[in-house]
Amino acid sequence: MKILQDRIRRDGKVLSSHILKVDSFLNHQVDPDLTMQIGQAFADVFREERVTKVLTIEASGIHFALATAYALHVPFVYAKKKKAVTQSDDVYSAPVHSFTRKEDYQISIAKSYLSSDDRILIVDDFLATGAALIGLKQIVAEAGAELLGVGAVIEKSFQEGRGLLEEAGVRVVSLARIKAMSSEGIEFIEEETSK
Amino acid sequence: MKILQDRIRRDGKVLSSHILKVDSFLNHQVDPDLTMQIGQAFADVFREERVTKVLTIEASGIHFALATAYALHVPFVYAKKKKAVTQSDDVYSAPVHSFTRKEDYQISIAKSYLSSDDRILIVDDFLATGAALIGLKQIVAEAGAELLGVGAVIEKSFQEGRGLLEEAGVRVVSLARIKAMSSEGIEFIEEETSK
Repeated sequence: MKILQDRIRRDGKVLSSHILKVDSFLNHQVDPDLTMQIGQAFADVFREERVTKVLTIEASGIHFALATAYALHVPFVYAKKKKAVTQSDDVYSAPVHSFTRKEDYQISIAKSYLSSDDRILIVDDFLATGAALIGLKQIVAEAGAELLGVGAVIEKSFQEGRGLLEEAGVRVVSLARIKAMSSEGIEFIEEETSK
Repeated sequence: MKILQDRIRRDGKVLSSHILKVDSFLNHQVDPDLTMQIGQAFADVFREERVTKVLTIEASGIHFALATAYALHVPFVYAKKKKAVTQSDDVYSAPVHSFTRKEDYQISIAKSYLSSDDRILIVDDFLATGAALIGLKQIVAEAGAELLGVGAVIEKSFQEGRGLLEEAGVRVVSLARIKAMSSEGIEFIEEETSK
């Protein structure tokens, strides 16, 4: 997605070879027009797949889920994070390890909002280690729903997330795939889905 | 907002005289069309006020902030919650007491994203005790920005939040004001802004 890549080059801050700060336009402060365009881009890719529900994880995936769900005219559900492992009969849950925060947490979704009839598109802001997305994938499987694919706004292609998801048979669509980055600049992988 | 009130009557679950569950269409699972209409309703009320930024708090305010900011063509910023009180020079922060979770937390916004030139509209899903919104109000004041008003999707009018905000001179616009509720039903306060 050309305008996203341009915006990342202009307003993103490369703090190290692994850390990209986009909190002036994608998380924390958010550009609503760009966000709606991102949702439209995911919807365009998955429109023929008869998506019944968009899934994401609080908090930084929520606005992208709204934008995507609005473009597809289906509901979205955001998984909740909690530190306490209070397993309830009413929720599907999965453990996630956060590498940035060096802690484990549980993500959960109420069973009422996921069924075996659902055709799911997962969206999130970043795909890096894939830990959170693999947790969501596990929840979708537990519900017996079908996972149509994962849409990531930004992919750190030098990390293992895409590989792990693809090995598990998941289709991955990222709107900006970063091959490498440094204070010198950001190198993107060009893709057929880019526009 | 008539369609919101109807939807709350239809899909909301009154668990007690104080607890209303709307997680099948407003938080957790979210209806994107209704969310965009809610944002439009807030934008309609504040359109003449030259809003420069919409503010909210993660996680359940984020989709309403996107919808409102998109309708007003301005950015939105979501305050982050954290339990650890790590006061930094780079953020505005305020303490908030959560009555439902019985714990204190800090909300914070990076100083880069709030300036004394900003004209702020705060939006959130619920107005009950007002604790979180008063924390946000404090952050807006600290930044020297102007607070144009607070938009709440649902107001529990039998709690003190609106009173506290109005006493502090804040304009409050709620799209569904609940006067009382029980297993028998929900009574709304009809308002001039309702439609």
